[in-house]
Amino acid sequence: MNRAVVARVVGLILGIEAICMLPSFFIALVTRGPDAQAFGISIAVCAVLWLLLSRVTIESKRIQTRDGFVAVALCWIVLGLTGALPYTLCGFSYVDSVFETVSGFTTTGATIVAAPSALPRGLQFWRALTQWMGGMGVLVMVLALLPSLGEGSVNLMKAESPGPISSKLRPKTSETAKSLYFIYIALTVAETVSLRVAGMPLFDSLTTSFTTISTGGFSVRDASIAYYQSEAINWIIVLFMFVSGVNFSVLFQAQRRQLKDALRSEELRWYTLVTLGAVALITVDLLCKAGGGVYESFSSASFQVVTLMTTTGYATVDFDLWPYFSKLVLILVMFIGGCAGSTAGGVKVSRVVILFKGLKRELRRILHTREVRALTLERERVQEGTVSSVSVFFFAYIVIMLLCTAIVSLDEVDFTTAFTAALTTISNVGPGFALIGPTCNFGFLSALSKVSLTVTMLLGRLEIMPLLVLLFPSVWKK
Amino acid sequence: MNRAVVARVVGLILGIEAICMLPSFFIALVTRGPDAQAFGISIAVCAVLWLLLSRVTIESKRIQTRDGFVAVALCWIVLGLTGALPYTLCGFSYVDSVFETVSGFTTTGATIVAAPSALPRGLQFWRALTQWMGGMGVLVMVLALLPSLGEGSVNLMKAESPGPISSKLRPKTSETAKSLYFIYIALTVAETVSLRVAGMPLFDSLTTSFTTISTGGFSVRDASIAYYQSEAINWIIVLFMFVSGVNFSVLFQAQRRQLKDALRSEELRWYTLVTLGAVALITVDLLCKAGGGVYESFSSASFQVVTLMTTTGYATVDFDLWPYFSKLVLILVMFIGGCAGSTAGGVKVSRVVILFKGLKRELRRILHTREVRALTLERERVQEGTVSSVSVFFFAYIVIMLLCTAIVSLDEVDFTTAFTAALTTISNVGPGFALIGPTCNFGFLSALSKVSLTVTMLLGRLEIMPLLVLLFPSVWKK
Repeated sequence: MNRAVVARVVGLILGIEAICMLPSFFIALVTRGPDAQAFGISIAVCAVLWLLLSRVTIESKRIQTRDGFVAVALCWIVLGLTGALPYTLCGFSYVDSVFETVSGFTTTGATIVAAPSALPRGLQFWRALTQWMGGMGVLVMVLALLPSLGEGSVNLMKAESPGPISSKLRPKTSETAKSLYFIYIALTVAETVSLRVAGMPLFDSLTTSFTTISTGGFSVRDASIAYYQSEAINWIIVLFMFVSGVNFSVLFQAQRRQLKDALRSEELRWYTLVTLGAVALITVDLLCKAGGGVYESFSSASFQVVTLMTTTGYATVDFDLWPYFSKLVLILVMFIGGCAGSTAGGVKVSRVVILFKGLKRELRRILHTREVRALTLERERVQEGTVSSVSVFFFAYIVIMLLCTAIVSLDEVDFTTAFTAALTTISNVGPGFALIGPTCNFGFLSALSKVSLTVTMLLGRLEIMPLLVLLFPSVWKK
Repeated sequence: MNRAVVARVVGLILGIEAICMLPSFFIALVTRGPDAQAFGISIAVCAVLWLLLSRVTIESKRIQTRDGFVAVALCWIVLGLTGALPYTLCGFSYVDSVFETVSGFTTTGATIVAAPSALPRGLQFWRALTQWMGGMGVLVMVLALLPSLGEGSVNLMKAESPGPISSKLRPKTSETAKSLYFIYIALTVAETVSLRVAGMPLFDSLTTSFTTISTGGFSVRDASIAYYQSEAINWIIVLFMFVSGVNFSVLFQAQRRQLKDALRSEELRWYTLVTLGAVALITVDLLCKAGGGVYESFSSASFQVVTLMTTTGYATVDFDLWPYFSKLVLILVMFIGGCAGSTAGGVKVSRVVILFKGLKRELRRILHTREVRALTLERERVQEGTVSSVSVFFFAYIVIMLLCTAIVSLDEVDFTTAFTAALTTISNVGPGFALIGPTCNFGFLSALSKVSLTVTMLLGRLEIMPLLVLLFPSVWKK
């Protein structure tokens, strides 16, 4: 391992974090909140660590794949541990603080805060901002700022960019990273303005946009989006959540006016199809079993399907009270998640498509023994190595989910609670069902459960492998 | 498809079924039960169909892999549909009858009968016998009896023999099939004698042995094995269940006095390790949370872990009342199941081992990009095709489980009930948790749920692919 480079990268991340805490600090000062001191101290701590780490001398600029994986994994862990300081200094336990921070950076949105509206303003802003920072991956930011690391930076990206598709657009240079950021920021601004026009207060509009575009799901209101009681606001959020769940390379094409190419995306089609299918199923189920009008059912179904499929996790209704079949459909879309290369979590649509194609090919093999066809996705051949990586990923996903369920069930919570806690954290959604439903929070769980769920959130966000790699002793050798 | 051969095979199966109904018929006659007429009619129907199908002229003896798959799938479906006749003629609905019969043949042991002890004796015997027949796969029987089909019979075996390992012993000839049957029958006799000696009535001993060695789990008593209130009986059953969950090729080696080779089996080691680990975890959990002594906790834990891991599904206690962590461990072992090439269901230990090895290899690949090692199992190289088949199988397993959960939840049953119903049927276990716990039955579910669960049992027993292949239109072409 190239320890010096890894240390420098971690240092830079801490510097960025310190800078990102400044707005919250100012808000705390302006509102004369009790959190001003907390942010002051946190910024100082991060800045000092940054300075210390920036003095590490780099002997070799060579970065191997594994260095990239380790750097990414460590950055996320360090971000979680230091980003938690403001919460701790405002009176939360450290375990709770790290849970909330990692839930932020991983864009999960699971919370231990019973009443977010009662938090000081600075902390509310920080809570939303962690999601926005996490959404596109802080590492992309590093890439854009760290041309000094040169060629090796591609290896940093390998670990970071989500999903199995080797897209032509995959950010190989700081140029691409910048253009992705442009889309990201443009979407955020567009949503903020739309929400403001629809009548949402400015602070709420901004923080909600942060947590929508990153598919995070934190809200400054205790009742989440239900607080605003506005159909216009709901549909604006549905639109922006849906767009944020699309592969950013497709958005990139659309932005370059290659709309026809963009719409040809196979993953986009499946993503749309699954969303529409789930909305239809739930609408019918709600109509049959829950009463209520057609529009009302369709509207709630659309909001909840899109918010859970894109792994955002807002709530406009208490969907834990819905009929069981509807809840099961929601669990399925939480599991599938958004598109690869988006800010969404979950297994990802393209992986699920590859797995289904693999199943179909296996059946074909049985029928026509001699025929061996390669899988295709987006009209390109999928390499066998990718197919096997995707299968392994799927297996690891299930295993981690089951292990996490087992640990949480040590708290004597029912199977639904434990299972959906594991699912909602590994898929980076936020709420689950039963005791951790949309009107509840994770505060009551034991420290052990909270730590496990925190690790699960990181595993989900980093797509498992970079964190597991840390378990190999050989990684730590020079 | 070679329709004539498939028709002849299905015909033979019906003939065997008719013959297998004879003992139940005699028992019904001797006990003057109301089921004598039912068995008489059922035997006549099966025999007539057999005669009709045996008149089909075979033009070509060529059997391709897909013919084997289709024949196997159709045989199991036809067995379920015709084996249900005695139940229906005794007053059960046809859907319930097919559910119970398929649950028998697939060695699942899920039941719609609230009080099995109240069934007529002949039906009780038939219920147990279906499991014993299903255990080793009726097709092996066909193989042993059908040398006239010659070489092609290997292709029938491909579909039938469970598990991913290409063992040297895999029954390629009727000789091997016969020697496997010898072990199967010897185990059944040994258990019957042991149980009789331990004080169980003869009829109970025989039917219990039928459902133990096949890892089925039906019992003639309403309280399952708890009825006998005997530690000796419990431990005898634990022993035989455990042995029945071992790969029969290992038992074959042991029987040939190659005990050292047998004990070197990697799968056997993992199977033992997982069993012991699960027993230890549950014993500790029960001691901490449920009260009760060390021996009592250990004894119940051992029985329940072995019965659920081997996918038998008896009960000595109501494990649905256990602490949540223990229940979760039970769910995990139900999921893993027994060894490949045994009568047990589940994903199978060897598949899980291959998947874990695949995960480890993937992590190694990240660390050492150029290194590509083949997986090994039982000290032999596992072909890449097998690794990929295993991954596809795992994915299909999860998808089917989730779809089945969704359908069952249409009955407005909670997630735990719906999920464990799907799990227990695809893994061919029997009981689940909550509304389908060990003291409950599946009778209250809707016809749609029962049909889905019936299909899921078949999918589990046939290891998915042979049934899915039927969905391809090209299969049905000549």
